Amino acid sequence: MSEKGRLIVISGPSGAGKSTVVFKVMEKRNDSCFSTSVTTRKPRPGEVDGREYFFVELDRFREMVENGELLEHAEYVANSYGTPRKYVEQKLDEGMNVLLDIEVQGARQVNANRPDAVKIFILPPSKEELARRLRGRGTDTERAIEARLIRAGQECEEADFYDYVIVNDDADKAAEELDAILTAERCRADNRKACMEKFFN
Amino acid sequence: MSEKGRLIVISGPSGAGKSTVVFKVMEKRNDSCFSTSVTTRKPRPGEVDGREYFFVELDRFREMVENGELLEHAEYVANSYGTPRKYVEQKLDEGMNVLLDIEVQGARQVNANRPDAVKIFILPPSKEELARRLRGRGTDTERAIEARLIRAGQECEEADFYDYVIVNDDADKAAEELDAILTAERCRADNRKACMEKFFN
Repeated sequence: MSEKGRLIVISGPSGAGKSTVVFKVMEKRNDSCFSTSVTTRKPRPGEVDGREYFFVELDRFREMVENGELLEHAEYVANSYGTPRKYVEQKLDEGMNVLLDIEVQGARQVNANRPDAVKIFILPPSKEELARRLRGRGTDTERAIEARLIRAGQECEEADFYDYVIVNDDADKAAEELDAILTAERCRADNRKACMEKFFN
Repeated sequence: MSEKGRLIVISGPSGAGKSTVVFKVMEKRNDSCFSTSVTTRKPRPGEVDGREYFFVELDRFREMVENGELLEHAEYVANSYGTPRKYVEQKLDEGMNVLLDIEVQGARQVNANRPDAVKIFILPPSKEELARRLRGRGTDTERAIEARLIRAGQECEEADFYDYVIVNDDADKAAEELDAILTAERCRADNRKACMEKFFN
């Protein structure tokens, strides 16, 4: 494949239906994959290093942060997670789009490291619908749902930072839009230089 | 429709298969239309003012140029043609994408007037294939074909100016790409401000 892949950052509040939309598109396309994250968490039974995660010790993780080996990272109390630059760039060179499903803060970090990343925000159609979806899951207390809604509002205020906004009113329509964005981004003039050179030679 | 349409400029050398690709997409989408040009040419039998063209006298045409009423124009020996700004902007406000099939020079004029125009270049896969297509038509002399090929080479050198490049190797695939670009452009964050406002209210 002569075309390079694109780094695709996808964000959106919990309850926006991001995973459903992304999985619908991934099923359809063979030119796109998820990135594999680096984590300091211990592997669970059945997890394979380099498949679910790249498992590293905290010292190595911090070294990676210092050396700029991560496109973005987040350290939590218990565990740390990050996106390995080298792995992502290998996949892009192979012509694969690499999708990162990350929060707004991580998206900003990625953007600082790779301004060419395509940034997509998935928005629920309204606050009321988001509340209905979160309550429908039946997994959270009312207090946790209220906290999620406040957080969603804050995240959505950052949607301006993104290149594209998909309103997930209907998951099939939203998946079509994401699919179209991936196809369109492949047609960007700067990605088609190889075709143009071929034409002149 | 709360979303505005996009102004879409499509260029490409004669023989790139532009019309085939564009018509395939127009058949599918009801959110996109061609612009109607202004011309100084006299209407032919059956042609209706405002349908095939807006027919004007040369004086009025030149007045339109002077007043900035045309997004682009070209004056030939016999007749002049131009794209009426007001008509285009009305359609965009109605939510329709407006497609202009114009040459590189016209595309640059449009871009100066509407830098938000989406610029798409349709490229034949190679010079050899372009030559084969032009000869296959059987309508041009060998000398005219040579001239077209030289002109095509010059036009393709300007493909860099465009936002997107579609290589028309296969018309169905090229149409899918154009269709995806139109869908993706609707998802641009600056086009989805209304959805975002709806979310916050």
